[in-house]
Amino acid sequence: TARELFDAIKQLKIRGAPAIGVAAAIGLYVCASRFEDVSPAGFAYSFKKTKEFINSARPTARNLFYATERMEKVIKNSHNCTVMQMISALEAESQKIFDEDIAVCRKIGENGAPLLFDGCTVLTHCNAGSLCAVEYGTALAPIYIATEQEKKIKVFADETRPLLQGARLTAFELCEKGIDTTVICDNMAASLMQSKKIDAVIVGCDRVAANGDFANKIGTLSLAVNAKHFGIPFYVAAPYSTIDFNTPSGAEIVVEERDGKEISEYWYSKRMTPNTAKEYNPAFDVTPNELVTSYITEKGILEHIKIDI
Amino acid sequence: TARELFDAIKQLKIRGAPAIGVAAAIGLYVCASRFEDVSPAGFAYSFKKTKEFINSARPTARNLFYATERMEKVIKNSHNCTVMQMISALEAESQKIFDEDIAVCRKIGENGAPLLFDGCTVLTHCNAGSLCAVEYGTALAPIYIATEQEKKIKVFADETRPLLQGARLTAFELCEKGIDTTVICDNMAASLMQSKKIDAVIVGCDRVAANGDFANKIGTLSLAVNAKHFGIPFYVAAPYSTIDFNTPSGAEIVVEERDGKEISEYWYSKRMTPNTAKEYNPAFDVTPNELVTSYITEKGILEHIKIDI
Repeated sequence: TARELFDAIKQLKIRGAPAIGVAAAIGLYVCASRFEDVSPAGFAYSFKKTKEFINSARPTARNLFYATERMEKVIKNSHNCTVMQMISALEAESQKIFDEDIAVCRKIGENGAPLLFDGCTVLTHCNAGSLCAVEYGTALAPIYIATEQEKKIKVFADETRPLLQGARLTAFELCEKGIDTTVICDNMAASLMQSKKIDAVIVGCDRVAANGDFANKIGTLSLAVNAKHFGIPFYVAAPYSTIDFNTPSGAEIVVEERDGKEISEYWYSKRMTPNTAKEYNPAFDVTPNELVTSYITEKGILEHIKIDI
Repeated sequence: TARELFDAIKQLKIRGAPAIGVAAAIGLYVCASRFEDVSPAGFAYSFKKTKEFINSARPTARNLFYATERMEKVIKNSHNCTVMQMISALEAESQKIFDEDIAVCRKIGENGAPLLFDGCTVLTHCNAGSLCAVEYGTALAPIYIATEQEKKIKVFADETRPLLQGARLTAFELCEKGIDTTVICDNMAASLMQSKKIDAVIVGCDRVAANGDFANKIGTLSLAVNAKHFGIPFYVAAPYSTIDFNTPSGAEIVVEERDGKEISEYWYSKRMTPNTAKEYNPAFDVTPNELVTSYITEKGILEHIKIDI
């Protein structure tokens, strides 16, 4: 049901921008195949409402809106079709989005792998690997492809507070693939950069604005500032579809604020902060374009994303 | 016993550079008053061994070495004294170290308070307040004194992974004193700085080298780099005794590496990282002098600590 899909996205059972997009597309097809009102107008209305509901699950990820827009276009482009034909077209479109994710992430990996030399050490944040997409993921794709090419790559994974996606997900999938992985607390990255133990930072992203600013998991901005300070290349790996040309700059990206209990209580057997303390828990931050060395996309390595309007 | 004191420091039951120093001084007096060999030579030998043992509990904190050196000087300066007289002198010296900590921290607060304007917001890291010293602490002393002066000060406290001293200790003591306190994950500080929600950063420190580089809780370096990037003043509050003129620069400061389980298991009901992942857990990092706006000491605000040798 739409409610189940909404909850799964909201509660991070499905998380990671590409996975959210693919899940939303397939979910919209499944929901549409069960709409009760099968008049063309009623069907289109139900679809629009369901799409808006799913979109409201998380406000920051571009891929979610991109996928649901593509699905809605299928309806808009099928004026003379029966509802059964529309459902078939939605199924085909969702399968296409699924297949494209695999191909796009593989290509991101192929384009990014030459940036990583044999023996190099990469720092990553949050999880932008297999567990956030259908197959290779984004930020980890260049590491996977470089490893397939028999380069020895070592990874430091930020644990990524408060939800520990780095410790739980990134370390898990890297270790499954036999890659040398060390988990650190987020606040330790600068010290590693200072002592020249990091050769490159690669992160994924949830939305790129037209001027190249991008939103990603909270903590990304701090890494980018530190990478700049210590002269370490800072790469953002993302499908081209993550670029939102309708958002002029990072200032217009809405950042989701989540429950403070994720900081004070989640994971712990008891509350870790005094009851009278507040918490502030933004899920994302926005990193300005000038801190990005380059964007690794399926269309190639982009030194600058900057659209002159 | 010396063993109990060693364990209490090692296991962080006593933590925070000033508190460690005071505890070591009092502890050395208590141990000395129970030495079995009361011949002057035997007494001095036992003292030296006990001092070395206590010093080995944590390698980074300057205050520990400073306090135990002062206590040893009492022995060295009492050649014609009886052992009973030496013990009395040790008691007096440890009481003096205790009293000085209160006076010094109060003075740090008085010197630092004018840096904080009414209505300003301060970011701090780890715990450098009452719970790391005898009374006011160091980094929090200017906040306490400014609050006594009826300025309204708001504090963001980094939770400070892996041991959460910010969430557990700093938030606790600030809330006890009725100060508006918000706990954030360490990786959120940059985002607050970017959105101009932080007016000043104040941290404590464990050791200042002769060139002004300083060691403090892991995560301090990242804050200093970000504060510089976003043009926010970055203050280090510390007793003058924290300056170690025998350590030329930060490069010579030995940084304690602690058990990786503090990252993967501590606080949690189950292990958060896969068994095959490693952890890296440095307890401190070293921030270069050029990232420090000024040092707040009991002798005044020092713009530069730099000794020409």
